[in-house]
Amino acid sequence: MARSWSGAPQGLDALFAPRGVAIVGASTDPASPGHQIVAQLQQTRYPGGVFPVNPRAGEVRGLRCYSTVLQIPDPVDLAVLTVPAPACLVVAAQLAARRQQRGDLGAAVVVSGGFAETGREGRSLQEQLVSTLRSAGIRLVGPNCLGVADGHTGLTTSFDLGPYPRGGVSLLSQSGAFAMSFLHWARPLEMVGLCKLASVGNMADVTLTELLGYLADDPCTRVVGVYLEGVEEGRSFVQTAARVVARKPVVVLKPGRTEAGARAAQSHTGSVATRDAIYEGAFRQAGVLRARTVSEFYGMVRALERLPLPPGNRVAVLSAVGGPGTVCVDEVVSQRSLRLASFAGQTRRALRAVLSEIATIGQPEGYVDMTGALTARTHGEALRLLLADDGVDAVILLTPPPTFLDEEEVAQHVVDAYRSQPQEPRKPVAVVLTFGDGAIRARRILEAGGLCTFEFPEEAAQVVARMVEYVQARDRLQR
Amino acid sequence: MARSWSGAPQGLDALFAPRGVAIVGASTDPASPGHQIVAQLQQTRYPGGVFPVNPRAGEVRGLRCYSTVLQIPDPVDLAVLTVPAPACLVVAAQLAARRQQRGDLGAAVVVSGGFAETGREGRSLQEQLVSTLRSAGIRLVGPNCLGVADGHTGLTTSFDLGPYPRGGVSLLSQSGAFAMSFLHWARPLEMVGLCKLASVGNMADVTLTELLGYLADDPCTRVVGVYLEGVEEGRSFVQTAARVVARKPVVVLKPGRTEAGARAAQSHTGSVATRDAIYEGAFRQAGVLRARTVSEFYGMVRALERLPLPPGNRVAVLSAVGGPGTVCVDEVVSQRSLRLASFAGQTRRALRAVLSEIATIGQPEGYVDMTGALTARTHGEALRLLLADDGVDAVILLTPPPTFLDEEEVAQHVVDAYRSQPQEPRKPVAVVLTFGDGAIRARRILEAGGLCTFEFPEEAAQVVARMVEYVQARDRLQR
Repeated sequence: MARSWSGAPQGLDALFAPRGVAIVGASTDPASPGHQIVAQLQQTRYPGGVFPVNPRAGEVRGLRCYSTVLQIPDPVDLAVLTVPAPACLVVAAQLAARRQQRGDLGAAVVVSGGFAETGREGRSLQEQLVSTLRSAGIRLVGPNCLGVADGHTGLTTSFDLGPYPRGGVSLLSQSGAFAMSFLHWARPLEMVGLCKLASVGNMADVTLTELLGYLADDPCTRVVGVYLEGVEEGRSFVQTAARVVARKPVVVLKPGRTEAGARAAQSHTGSVATRDAIYEGAFRQAGVLRARTVSEFYGMVRALERLPLPPGNRVAVLSAVGGPGTVCVDEVVSQRSLRLASFAGQTRRALRAVLSEIATIGQPEGYVDMTGALTARTHGEALRLLLADDGVDAVILLTPPPTFLDEEEVAQHVVDAYRSQPQEPRKPVAVVLTFGDGAIRARRILEAGGLCTFEFPEEAAQVVARMVEYVQARDRLQR
Repeated sequence: MARSWSGAPQGLDALFAPRGVAIVGASTDPASPGHQIVAQLQQTRYPGGVFPVNPRAGEVRGLRCYSTVLQIPDPVDLAVLTVPAPACLVVAAQLAARRQQRGDLGAAVVVSGGFAETGREGRSLQEQLVSTLRSAGIRLVGPNCLGVADGHTGLTTSFDLGPYPRGGVSLLSQSGAFAMSFLHWARPLEMVGLCKLASVGNMADVTLTELLGYLADDPCTRVVGVYLEGVEEGRSFVQTAARVVARKPVVVLKPGRTEAGARAAQSHTGSVATRDAIYEGAFRQAGVLRARTVSEFYGMVRALERLPLPPGNRVAVLSAVGGPGTVCVDEVVSQRSLRLASFAGQTRRALRAVLSEIATIGQPEGYVDMTGALTARTHGEALRLLLADDGVDAVILLTPPPTFLDEEEVAQHVVDAYRSQPQEPRKPVAVVLTFGDGAIRARRILEAGGLCTFEFPEEAAQVVARMVEYVQARDRLQR
């Protein structure tokens, strides 16, 4: 972490790098969220102070429990509230009192529901909560959310994330379940590393837009993924996004394309319904990458974290499997932003020397069907040749891996070829393992080696297209 | 197997239910395809005779090896040739001689390449091969293919399929790699069961069309998946497909939507280029379900094997996760063939009694957001209520499964609710496990329980739409 721990963190830094965290509502019952949040912070070895708060418990998971936040002797920059909504108001007053006395407690996460999402009475509770915290200068994430996490510091206010590989993906989400689903989905193969996570809930104070702007300057965030149902400050969100896009990619999944979908979003987060076409145009203008589907969102975020950006739009397709290779060619050419590469004569000759005589090279241009007649080494050799060709900006490699070959050996040759590229500018390589989980050992090695793996040819083509489109948008916005 | 083993099988039955199989080119070298085919037949416990043929080996994997097919004393209905192309001509003459003497050997699979796909000389070899076999009355699959397999008899001529769960999926493919990729992809979670497989290669004799017609009458085939690059007999293929569609669904993936894709297909299988729009219209007319992507193909074939057909097009979305649920609603409504269900008043009241008070029911119509406040049992109870509502034809259930719940218990409750439906007409249930492989134990239980699982909300909505479209096409064709 770049920040110093000596003074109180400023602004939203209190959310991600607090010197100490108070968990108000921590309990000895393992089925309670408060208990689980303490457990998570212990598992992630969060280096700051962890302070359970509960007047009815002496200790929680071996940690001394305080009756209120006012008793905690050490600096506390963040409070997490899991107590019922009405009790949150009492706690908020205590937080305000502490901030006045001690000058710490820059932020609070209110996990609890029972606020604006439940109707008139809850809305009134929420207004009182915000008013108390705001007048004390305490920022609020939530209520009704999973809160925040930071893969680098180990901070988490989520009760089920667990220690997570650190990395460059930051997620902002109006659905806690959406963000958690992505992280849990990607975990078995370690397909993403986490930078920062914010599940924003009712957004009574801190908004998606403010967090998005914050991530622009965050050095460890390489790509921002946003699950957006609707925000009041739509115009400002898009303006902020354009500013971020000039520095790093922003991927948005926004349902509500249909009236029924908009209705579902509204009943979920009470989000503002805005005509979808307005968002569509604004995103395009701002260079925001809009995912149509969950699968596309995951693929784009993964690839943009892990792979280098393609220097251009010329794609080579290198396949050990004729059918899936053909499907991939179709999909590459169907993407308006991509075209198939043209190989240099030298590349063709070198490929011819390396590959089986039944391989077809350049039919069509940019496509190599190695056929199944190849070795693990051949995978690496052919990939090296394509990456070295100045006419190639990105490679999609498709392999089962073939029968009679050791999948780990194939994967290692591919990783070595990928890494043999000079440091800058590297070209991205997307690998389609057509056996899916049937080639899980190969996928692990490739992902650990910095490549991005897919189960389906079309996914890889679509993701490379979105990467090219990001580069084009960024260059336009930087001009 | 329904067929009698006493007489010689007729027509294409010789391919899938031979009394004995000769593997010409079987060898003691484990790296040779001939050796592996013998190994596969032993692993699948193929009940017919398995006869390695190789003049230079005494035995292969403990089985007596014959110097030619002429020496085999027992009935042999199928020969598999893995010897080089020129040698295949010599073997073909021996097959013809044997058929004249013994009356068996109704079919041959020529795995070897080196024929028409390699140019003029190979084309001439292929013509001689066909001529020899045809005048003897021996049907030929291939050359240049993986051949055939039958999940029920255990027959296989593939060198890497392994014992496979038996079921109702039959695959016809112009790409061996495509068919194998699907089967290997689906294997870890046992998401499909195999009925019959034919990788057709150069189609010098037996065509996709003939096999498709054959499967119409095959009692164990519930759904036919076809990977089609191009056939000479396009019109006849589509006519045959229409005949099959009246009895069971046909799903086709046909690349070549773009010129480059068509070129790749051509260099792969020498397939005939036909304007894609012609196929597109003909498929629609014939009620063939066309998959645009590999992922869609897999999903359609899986669901059509496993799930009952929906009695109508009214879909209920039952979600424990607000964000993914919202995405799913959007996708259901985006499908022209689907609409959201309307719940009966009784269903609403019963759901209200079962679910948490923060759950939202029918906002929009047909959508239930259970929220994360639920138990394993609640999953089952809510699903039962929806399945019992006459206004619901299909259910999409989305769950992570939620934190604090045991995933196996959730899955078991869902399976029990699904199975509690009266035998006929059952309604299909597609389950989206948003944690993907992170909920792998739940997926296994659900798949084994006869449900179909997906990782992404959009997949489930699209697949249910295709099922509805199949029913509509079938009813139109049966009229």
